Amino acid sequence: MRVSELAVTFGCDVIGDPDTEVTHVATLQNAGEGALSFLSNPHYRQYLSTTGAAAVVVAEEFANDVPGCAIIAKDPYVTYARMAAALYPAPRMQGGVHPSASVAEDAFVDPTASIGANVVIDAGVYVDAGVVCGAGTFIGAGSRIGADCILEPNVTIMADVHIGVRGLVHAGAVIGTDGFGIARTPEAWIKVPQVGGVRIGDDVEIGACTSIDRGAIEHTRIGAGVKLDNQIQIGHNTVIGDHTVMAGMVGIAGSTTIGKNCVFGGNSGTSGHLSIADNVVITARCTVTSDIEQAGTYGGVFPHEEFRQYQRNLARYRQLDKLARRLAALEKKIR
Amino acid sequence: MRVSELAVTFGCDVIGDPDTEVTHVATLQNAGEGALSFLSNPHYRQYLSTTGAAAVVVAEEFANDVPGCAIIAKDPYVTYARMAAALYPAPRMQGGVHPSASVAEDAFVDPTASIGANVVIDAGVYVDAGVVCGAGTFIGAGSRIGADCILEPNVTIMADVHIGVRGLVHAGAVIGTDGFGIARTPEAWIKVPQVGGVRIGDDVEIGACTSIDRGAIEHTRIGAGVKLDNQIQIGHNTVIGDHTVMAGMVGIAGSTTIGKNCVFGGNSGTSGHLSIADNVVITARCTVTSDIEQAGTYGGVFPHEEFRQYQRNLARYRQLDKLARRLAALEKKIR
Amino acid sequence: MRVSELAVTFGCDVIGDPDTEVTHVATLQNAGEGALSFLSNPHYRQYLSTTGAAAVVVAEEFANDVPGCAIIAKDPYVTYARMAAALYPAPRMQGGVHPSASVAEDAFVDPTASIGANVVIDAGVYVDAGVVCGAGTFIGAGSRIGADCILEPNVTIMADVHIGVRGLVHAGAVIGTDGFGIARTPEAWIKVPQVGGVRIGDDVEIGACTSIDRGAIEHTRIGAGVKLDNQIQIGHNTVIGDHTVMAGMVGIAGSTTIGKNCVFGGNSGTSGHLSIADNVVITARCTVTSDIEQAGTYGGVFPHEEFRQYQRNLARYRQLDKLARRLAALEKKIR
Repeated sequence: MRVSELAVTFGCDVIGDPDTEVTHVATLQNAGEGALSFLSNPHYRQYLSTTGAAAVVVAEEFANDVPGCAIIAKDPYVTYARMAAALYPAPRMQGGVHPSASVAEDAFVDPTASIGANVVIDAGVYVDAGVVCGAGTFIGAGSRIGADCILEPNVTIMADVHIGVRGLVHAGAVIGTDGFGIARTPEAWIKVPQVGGVRIGDDVEIGACTSIDRGAIEHTRIGAGVKLDNQIQIGHNTVIGDHTVMAGMVGIAGSTTIGKNCVFGGNSGTSGHLSIADNVVITARCTVTSDIEQAGTYGGVFPHEEFRQYQRNLARYRQLDKLARRLAALEKKIR
Repeated sequence: MRVSELAVTFGCDVIGDPDTEVTHVATLQNAGEGALSFLSNPHYRQYLSTTGAAAVVVAEEFANDVPGCAIIAKDPYVTYARMAAALYPAPRMQGGVHPSASVAEDAFVDPTASIGANVVIDAGVYVDAGVVCGAGTFIGAGSRIGADCILEPNVTIMADVHIGVRGLVHAGAVIGTDGFGIARTPEAWIKVPQVGGVRIGDDVEIGACTSIDRGAIEHTRIGAGVKLDNQIQIGHNTVIGDHTVMAGMVGIAGSTTIGKNCVFGGNSGTSGHLSIADNVVITARCTVTSDIEQAGTYGGVFPHEEFRQYQRNLARYRQLDKLARRLAALEKKIR
Repeated sequence: MRVSELAVTFGCDVIGDPDTEVTHVATLQNAGEGALSFLSNPHYRQYLSTTGAAAVVVAEEFANDVPGCAIIAKDPYVTYARMAAALYPAPRMQGGVHPSASVAEDAFVDPTASIGANVVIDAGVYVDAGVVCGAGTFIGAGSRIGADCILEPNVTIMADVHIGVRGLVHAGAVIGTDGFGIARTPEAWIKVPQVGGVRIGDDVEIGACTSIDRGAIEHTRIGAGVKLDNQIQIGHNTVIGDHTVMAGMVGIAGSTTIGKNCVFGGNSGTSGHLSIADNVVITARCTVTSDIEQAGTYGGVFPHEEFRQYQRNLARYRQLDKLARRLAALEKKIR
């Protein structure tokens, strides 16, 4: 593509030759001929003036430092994302069902959908136009996959799961598995039937090996535009508001309601039955143990220390209650 | 079903019309015509007097507040679980092997077992009566699946894994994978063969994307009635006592022995080679680093704080050793 | 096998009858006739003098305590690992493609490779000599699987993933899934195309349900001899040096570079964009939040405490900033 095409499509000014061709993306430090690159994280500014990139998406203030062609954008990362998507269009799939797939008689599969090898589609499933189902994927009874969804290989969608349009579910993810509902009798734990489903909005991405429980009675709900990374566990009856994002290994215990536009750092987690407001940021590895009513940033994790230093501080921590009492005693003495 | 049927089956008294019909379950706050609901968590008591439920399972003390029919139970949650199971019976599967399944010649599959599409059953496997194997499930050589087990789709059972009767294994779970046994030579890490199997008792539930390692030499053992949630990692040679339950994302390092009737909160974990007594409760995210000999509750996690408050406390924590020394110096001075 | 054969092959001296036969491995405490055992962890020394093992691999200093035949080794664990591998040779697979597998026309599969039931191999894939692909495994377009690799059942290898020779990937693992690259617009998060691949060296083991992201632009790189346990998450653009090992549930956020010969304990993790030196040990559950430039051991986790003791210390921790101020005030008063 020529830089001029990209600039027109995405409404950017250009400094340099607009006929410059870009064929692929590269990092500033390793870019060569035909590369489109970008500067967003200031950490990489050191590589700007010597980059071999044919074109660089930058904020206006850095445009004059670009050796090649500068594409000026208010948010260079967003504009780069859009241009990269234009440079690497998704392969057009020919609709059709692979002969090794098993599709229940009363399931509906739109003729423009592509159903891969060994896919199994159960009774009453509805697969809308343009859906791509990777090899080995399973879709349980009564589930609905919205138009233009992509299910990567080896995904498992259990019964009564509805996914909106343009969803993307990565390999190994499991949606609609039973919640962990057990009740204790004197002899044993017995299972509480999990009869709710899962309802997922439009434009949701779900990472590899992530599991989302079905509801115990009502549905587990994932809002529109939510992005979940890999290895996440979403407990039953969870409600996640629109455009909330979670990095890898987050754990949300059951029946917690999370607001819109929240950000959860990697391996953070919440207790069950909580309510978390809109626009809350939880930093990585933080454990949320009570309701959060105010938007804002919340943290709580002990960063690494050199091991002996850690042991010394830990030993003191374990005496903290005694330490506080000694301090109080001393204060009393002096008063 | 009529309330009278449920009441007789499960031995409950009824206040109200025993001919009331219930067709489905619902939460107190959203229940409508034909709904069976329950009150167990006191948090939901506020919804009792206005519920639209046809019938509610309650403790005797709340029976008179029920607008519809009250079904009186000592433990309403347990009784609700049993009644819900009666209302939502598991679909009766027709025994048989899907034509796309691959079953080794010398494997035994009971004629009442249901083997789904693309299931692969290796040499010497024994699949007992009433077993349901979901699509895409793999069962490795010599493994045994007890009567009435359900393996959901895309489960992987490696070789030499025995599962007792009425087991339930959710999608994406992997049982019998190699333990992490490696030995360091001057040049590289080499693999220590993992030749033990896995032995799982009756009535065990294993969550989605949970992995259980085979033993290094002897078997990894999971007791009867154990319930494991999603995304759990059980290391090799682990022994888990009967009726112990673990919430999602728990990690048990290798060669640890855990007693009976323990409860592990979400994302808690243990070091390896430990011994944990019966009736131990580990709260969520707690890290067990040494033996626990006494029944009781153990915890240890730092809950979230507003971010700047967290940073202030963290900074102090890092000076804790110095702080303690300063306190000691002051005490000496005053004495 | 006879002890003499093992001793000659692995260069060990023997005390006792070198014609002793060993047929299997066992722990010292449960060993019987024909068992080969070993003593490495001093914890198990108590079982040495009464073991029923036919032969025991031991350090020289303990050789005289062995009731049966002593096989003397400098590092008994390493020598045991090698002897066990000799006793339990991997089954020789007959090359060939199962009739239910789907192999793209332009993919290359070496005739000595064994391709299991329902395996799907996409366009342009190269599967080298001696590779074993377990049932249900998927290999995406353009990926390369090195000679003698074993992919266990239900593994997912996405497009453009190269794995070196003698790799071992366990069930449920997903390699080459999209990194978590999203950019925020005023309306929504949009996807940043993830166009890099994954490059994995020789002799790498990857655990069950572990996920490795493809690079955003450049490749995610896993060095030779790396061993990853189960349920690990490796973010995009991560670089892991040769012979680094990670126990289960480790999380590495994106764009972090880790040195050679590092050891990560279970459920430890790092922030993104960090640099970690060679020969670094991170203890279990520790969170690395900044660069580590020095080889050494680093820790940071709060071990379990009896619950009320934990609550008392936690309450004090939350007053830590105030406590420190009170101490400072007292010091001032006394000075």
